Amino acid sequence: AASSLWDELVVAASTGGSSGTVVSICVFTAVLCLCLVAGHLLEENKWVNESITALIIGCIVGALIFLLSKGRNSHILRFDEQLFFIYVLPPIIFNAGFQVKKKQFFHNFLTIMSFGVFGVFISVAIVSAGFYWLLPKVGFGKLDAVDYLALGVIFSSTDTVCTLQVISQDETPRLYSLVFGEGVVNDATSVVLFNAIKNMDITKIKSGAVLKVIGDFLYLFATSTILGATIGLFTAYVLKALYFGRHSTDREVALMALMAYLSYMLAELLSLSGILTVFFCGIVMSHYAWHNVTESSRITTRHIFATLSFIAETFIFLYVGMDALDMDKWKTTQASFKTSIGIFGVIISLILLGRAAFVFPLSILSNFMSGNSEKAPITFKHQFTFSGVTQDPVHATIITSTIVVVFFTTLVFGFLTRPMISAMLPQHRHREPAGGRSTGSNSPKDEFILPFLGDEDASGSGSGFVQAKRSISMMLERPIHTVHIYWRKFDDRFMRPIFGGPRSY
Amino acid sequence: AASSLWDELVVAASTGGSSGTVVSICVFTAVLCLCLVAGHLLEENKWVNESITALIIGCIVGALIFLLSKGRNSHILRFDEQLFFIYVLPPIIFNAGFQVKKKQFFHNFLTIMSFGVFGVFISVAIVSAGFYWLLPKVGFGKLDAVDYLALGVIFSSTDTVCTLQVISQDETPRLYSLVFGEGVVNDATSVVLFNAIKNMDITKIKSGAVLKVIGDFLYLFATSTILGATIGLFTAYVLKALYFGRHSTDREVALMALMAYLSYMLAELLSLSGILTVFFCGIVMSHYAWHNVTESSRITTRHIFATLSFIAETFIFLYVGMDALDMDKWKTTQASFKTSIGIFGVIISLILLGRAAFVFPLSILSNFMSGNSEKAPITFKHQFTFSGVTQDPVHATIITSTIVVVFFTTLVFGFLTRPMISAMLPQHRHREPAGGRSTGSNSPKDEFILPFLGDEDASGSGSGFVQAKRSISMMLERPIHTVHIYWRKFDDRFMRPIFGGPRSY
Repeated sequence: AASSLWDELVVAASTGGSSGTVVSICVFTAVLCLCLVAGHLLEENKWVNESITALIIGCIVGALIFLLSKGRNSHILRFDEQLFFIYVLPPIIFNAGFQVKKKQFFHNFLTIMSFGVFGVFISVAIVSAGFYWLLPKVGFGKLDAVDYLALGVIFSSTDTVCTLQVISQDETPRLYSLVFGEGVVNDATSVVLFNAIKNMDITKIKSGAVLKVIGDFLYLFATSTILGATIGLFTAYVLKALYFGRHSTDREVALMALMAYLSYMLAELLSLSGILTVFFCGIVMSHYAWHNVTESSRITTRHIFATLSFIAETFIFLYVGMDALDMDKWKTTQASFKTSIGIFGVIISLILLGRAAFVFPLSILSNFMSGNSEKAPITFKHQFTFSGVTQDPVHATIITSTIVVVFFTTLVFGFLTRPMISAMLPQHRHREPAGGRSTGSNSPKDEFILPFLGDEDASGSGSGFVQAKRSISMMLERPIHTVHIYWRKFDDRFMRPIFGGPRSY
Repeated sequence: AASSLWDELVVAASTGGSSGTVVSICVFTAVLCLCLVAGHLLEENKWVNESITALIIGCIVGALIFLLSKGRNSHILRFDEQLFFIYVLPPIIFNAGFQVKKKQFFHNFLTIMSFGVFGVFISVAIVSAGFYWLLPKVGFGKLDAVDYLALGVIFSSTDTVCTLQVISQDETPRLYSLVFGEGVVNDATSVVLFNAIKNMDITKIKSGAVLKVIGDFLYLFATSTILGATIGLFTAYVLKALYFGRHSTDREVALMALMAYLSYMLAELLSLSGILTVFFCGIVMSHYAWHNVTESSRITTRHIFATLSFIAETFIFLYVGMDALDMDKWKTTQASFKTSIGIFGVIISLILLGRAAFVFPLSILSNFMSGNSEKAPITFKHQFTFSGVTQDPVHATIITSTIVVVFFTTLVFGFLTRPMISAMLPQHRHREPAGGRSTGSNSPKDEFILPFLGDEDASGSGSGFVQAKRSISMMLERPIHTVHIYWRKFDDRFMRPIFGGPRSY
């Protein structure tokens, strides 16, 4: 029976028929379980995280299938883009919004927006120009100007999924909310830029084009946010008004999950940014709707969304690992090994340069400084978008390079991030309660890092330089603080009585 | 924007393209939410339940789409069989196993098996013969002998999904475990019968054929059960040995859900009964694995599976409602209105006759008597299996008739079941503690109904007739009781220390 099962698996892998679906689901589910167990066992190891484990296990399984099917095919589940956008991405982003520390997120809102909008513009410009200038030099130069811009967008957008795996919200709340928030806003920017570039006639660029793109972004951002918040508020109101918990806890949970999903799909239907919408829907739901359900529903929703998101994340990394050995793609590439290495080097350098070019200046501008520039894995979203077209050898080269880059960034930076954070953090752990003078923050390097890695009150009163920076930062933060106070009042007086949630006074 | 959205919806409905998927998911999600709210509001109404609500709302939405798309198409989400078997059915059955009252279920095991195996054989024989004899008389007689047998199987298997919606496990535990248990075992029987009939050469029937079918069934039943139990035990062991809760609650929940799903898919891969496998996997997991996880995981798993199952159930009824107005099927039918009514009448009568023919004798045999014969909605599984072939006018007639029958049984029997149960139950509600003499159980009818609807101890010591029946029933129940005692000892001494769970002494 075992050998016939293998035969069936092999046949399924090479044909991808109806019984193939069952086989692939079996293999994927089993390997997912394996990843869970491996991730659990490696939990205390600070060099390895779940995404790296999933990537490596995915590679091994891909190699096994490749050998068993005698080199015919390595990826067993034909991954179509829809599967990713319709089923895998929404729970991850919704959960992120649901669990994010709202105070921290909104406190850093301006910084996040500047990273997510202007930062991406800067990065796209640098990366596109770099590709245009450098790619022909490594023996690869068959692209249109539009393609260079598209590549610039792809390699400039960061990946929210991978980021969440590596950075801990509890240890470095500010870093988390900045990096993650930027990733979410980033998505909206890249949607707008991608559409703009797609419709752009490169020969007739007008000076107003950039302004139009920024205008489009602001419109998209506003409408997506409003849609998400509206659906979240509506759900909260219905849950409060009808008091579902009276009859059934399951109905509450089901309603929250379905409405969240609906917000994402509606946004996609209306050509808005589904990611932004479902993210804000998550924030609103955890702020209002969550308080209107029974105690067991609260526990369930916290875990149900986290679990779904967890499975979806592991699935993605696993898939990328298995997909890496897809021979069809590698065969279509006509580039030589030397060219490939060249392309790979160019991409990695340009990504780092592009990131550094906006993270450092913008950080200084808003008083934040980061080791963040080293953490820029490519968004899987675009990697998958690109994966669709494998017939063209030029595209194939780009795709294989992208896979290598994804691997490199995930593995190398993934390995480095945790030790780096813990190397910078521990000496400042034992600080006094809020307002106290933090010890050992004398070197300029520390002064840059501390406000970013620690809590807000960590960089208390330091040297004169730090104090000067703080007064600038206070000026920048005051409007946010004022907005926050008014919002709290408004929230307590009007929103919470209608939509639910505890009073803060 | 609204009108363009409608246009898009109409286009998507008629073409079913890529943007069609997004539209259909939006519509389905929104209507599912509507069903949830409607179900909540109608909760206290004893005549209507959630399945009926979903069916009716589905019909209305189907009609709306039909009108909006100007009669071109009414079903917006092309339902393929795989979607049902791969995503919708497993959570429903797993949850049933996870939440079922194990003691009650195993106590009635012999009865359930006799209903599920011999009962189905009897019913298939009667329904097939009835079709063979009656269908030509209402002007419809173009089928092979094999087709009659297939129809017999389809209309003899009951639907576990609908049953769970109507009967409450808390009010009538015995009825619930019998009807539901039969539905699960039933599935295995019908899988075996279907395969047997498919491969059967009707002209060369041997006398050993029936024995072979029974042997196949026992083999299938045993292997499916063992597979499910093994995977459940393995999960319990891993959870206990590695103590996942130490690091992450979500990993525990994810592992349980994934392993349960894996059991179903593995069974399907090995051509076993996925339903039986995942059902027993659910039983084992709730008996062992559930005790090895953290407190919040326990709450979460209870609700996560119930919620998934709930959404899946509502989805099915909604889909059937929307599917009922699919014009393609109705147009292909060539039967006249009179013939249709005739076929419908034949099917309903034969189902009732077939059920009565095995429920009553088998009930008497094992001392249970039931109003169950009136509760026999067609299994959706086979309705969907049949839905695949719409080009043939004969098939189309059968399908449309099946839809009518599904509607009729769900609506009429669904409406009647709850009032019927509560009409029989309340007078026996206020009975004394165990062993006490139940009041007012003097009519023979009550003596038949009581042991079925009440708890085991309800029919205490009644008239001589009842006592005679009880002594026979005791003789039948003693081996089960003995097995139960040995099992408890074995469970306490060997199983629970390894796989987890509280000691019973």
